[in-house]
Amino acid sequence: MKMNSLALQYDSGKLLVLDQQLLPQKEQWIAVNGPEQMADIIRALKVRGAPLIGVAAAASLADWGLKTKPSPSDFLSTALMLRESRPTAVNLMNAIDRLLKVFDKTNFERVGEEAQAIFDEDVALCEQMAERANDFIQSGDGILTHCNTGGLATAGRGTAFGAFSYACEKGKKIHVYADETRPLLQGGRLTAWELGKNNIPHTLICDNMAASLMAQGKVQSVFVGTDRIALNGDVANKIGTYGLAVLCHYHKIPFYVVGPKTTVDKECFTGKNIPIEQRSDEEVLGVSGAFGKVRWAPDTTSVHNPAFDVTPVDLITGIILDGKYFSQKELKENALSK
Amino acid sequence: MKMNSLALQYDSGKLLVLDQQLLPQKEQWIAVNGPEQMADIIRALKVRGAPLIGVAAAASLADWGLKTKPSPSDFLSTALMLRESRPTAVNLMNAIDRLLKVFDKTNFERVGEEAQAIFDEDVALCEQMAERANDFIQSGDGILTHCNTGGLATAGRGTAFGAFSYACEKGKKIHVYADETRPLLQGGRLTAWELGKNNIPHTLICDNMAASLMAQGKVQSVFVGTDRIALNGDVANKIGTYGLAVLCHYHKIPFYVVGPKTTVDKECFTGKNIPIEQRSDEEVLGVSGAFGKVRWAPDTTSVHNPAFDVTPVDLITGIILDGKYFSQKELKENALSK
Repeated sequence: MKMNSLALQYDSGKLLVLDQQLLPQKEQWIAVNGPEQMADIIRALKVRGAPLIGVAAAASLADWGLKTKPSPSDFLSTALMLRESRPTAVNLMNAIDRLLKVFDKTNFERVGEEAQAIFDEDVALCEQMAERANDFIQSGDGILTHCNTGGLATAGRGTAFGAFSYACEKGKKIHVYADETRPLLQGGRLTAWELGKNNIPHTLICDNMAASLMAQGKVQSVFVGTDRIALNGDVANKIGTYGLAVLCHYHKIPFYVVGPKTTVDKECFTGKNIPIEQRSDEEVLGVSGAFGKVRWAPDTTSVHNPAFDVTPVDLITGIILDGKYFSQKELKENALSK
Repeated sequence: MKMNSLALQYDSGKLLVLDQQLLPQKEQWIAVNGPEQMADIIRALKVRGAPLIGVAAAASLADWGLKTKPSPSDFLSTALMLRESRPTAVNLMNAIDRLLKVFDKTNFERVGEEAQAIFDEDVALCEQMAERANDFIQSGDGILTHCNTGGLATAGRGTAFGAFSYACEKGKKIHVYADETRPLLQGGRLTAWELGKNNIPHTLICDNMAASLMAQGKVQSVFVGTDRIALNGDVANKIGTYGLAVLCHYHKIPFYVVGPKTTVDKECFTGKNIPIEQRSDEEVLGVSGAFGKVRWAPDTTSVHNPAFDVTPVDLITGIILDGKYFSQKELKENALSK
């Protein structure tokens, strides 16, 4: 196996992951010794982003298999332990299941090949998305994005974020406006860091500043990622996405969603069927992270803290899934059901 | 003089102001000994809110005059020193000028009466605004607000906020949603505290959550304050206000602005003429206050940090100025120029 991405490396039998909890204050790599440690790392959100979690778990399981040649039953129980290290990331389950499927009780080489394939496929998928999304970017554009959708969340360039680095490599002059994305600040911490790392001209803003930038004509398009897509084209994504889509509608700015095809939930007919996770009050009453912890709101304050919102297809210009583009019109004609 | 408000008290020759820098973690009153100390308090933002700054400065100047009977030239120079303690609050300049106008070189009683009048007028003005704004509140309403516009910013109930406490006193059942108002968190710190203090049912949200609340039908109206109103009805207010107005427009939710008549800038014909203050990068890269200081964004990140935005009259349902209501139609017919 050989893997080299922004937040994961495998070379000469050594697996390293970037500790995302310490970003952007510290760029510290963790040498991963076995699946138990990897599960701890995933649980502690040191590796995050649904695609990357799957890739990292698979790499660690395959590495351990190659090195220790465990018994089939040990291999199976360790795989299941890893598979449960995060409950909701479907990519994690799929990745582990793929390794279990090719495992024939002795041939760990084959497991390693499959882990490599999972990594390589994710990189290629990001390239496909970026290449297709780039068709909707003009040189000179100001582009606004929300949350983190880059190389910290995938094995490749990312989803929405991948389009930005790709466009820059093709010589387009763009300027990216990154929403800080309260309450967890994935924009202010991670996207700001990745934009700097990629030398992409950028400006960090508070979420409530997007509207006035649009009114000033500084935003030509908005690109976001997605956590789940319903069959009718409604999209669930990080809280704040829906508001951006409404602002785009008012200012006549195109609003694009970029994600892998696997994000489409075939069981889910409309956005109304997508359950929205409510998170802890603490996140809104203050902030905390490796950078420190403060709380500014009164103890008695009650809080609303949905992690996601749903953007209806009516507000979406188009969705880029893998290498394919679906316009609003196509989405409404049930293109995702076919 | 006798004054008693949420953040300022004067009784038996003792002037006290609430240290707003320590809110909401600590409710600590400062005994003010003379105008020099008051100027320091104002500069340190321990007393804030344009109307309250004017009232507090006047009270301290009058108190000092009554107690020490300074020479006319000392009184004048001290008045001017106070007048310059904050550069932009027009209320501060107006309040000091009123005291200077009535000062006849010996009669400090008259100065005290004028300071009292400034306090009483501000209280009465808040009542007028609240009473008129209350006409637009129905029992059962969910009302969203932005920034802090309450008793911490005025000598009375406040501007937009005053309508909420007034409606509750009249027996209306309302629920207030308070935007935290990044970057300075006036909503998360001060409005959340005032809502609790007034026993008004409320929920604190991050700024980017307002849109999804509206989509769920939980918001029946939005009330905000204002920093400056142009003659054509365009309104400058805390950054984030314009985005809320666009969201209201899309969701067909009425959007009201509440302020004193003195907020109308007769020299300013449209919102395009209102200069927007850009504040320091530091405020967006992290947070700091009496509650602590953390910074999460990378050092190299460039930042956009406008303190205000401008909401065009087209997005405003109506403006409540003192006791009078101006509909969008009236505003567009140049009601403010008359």
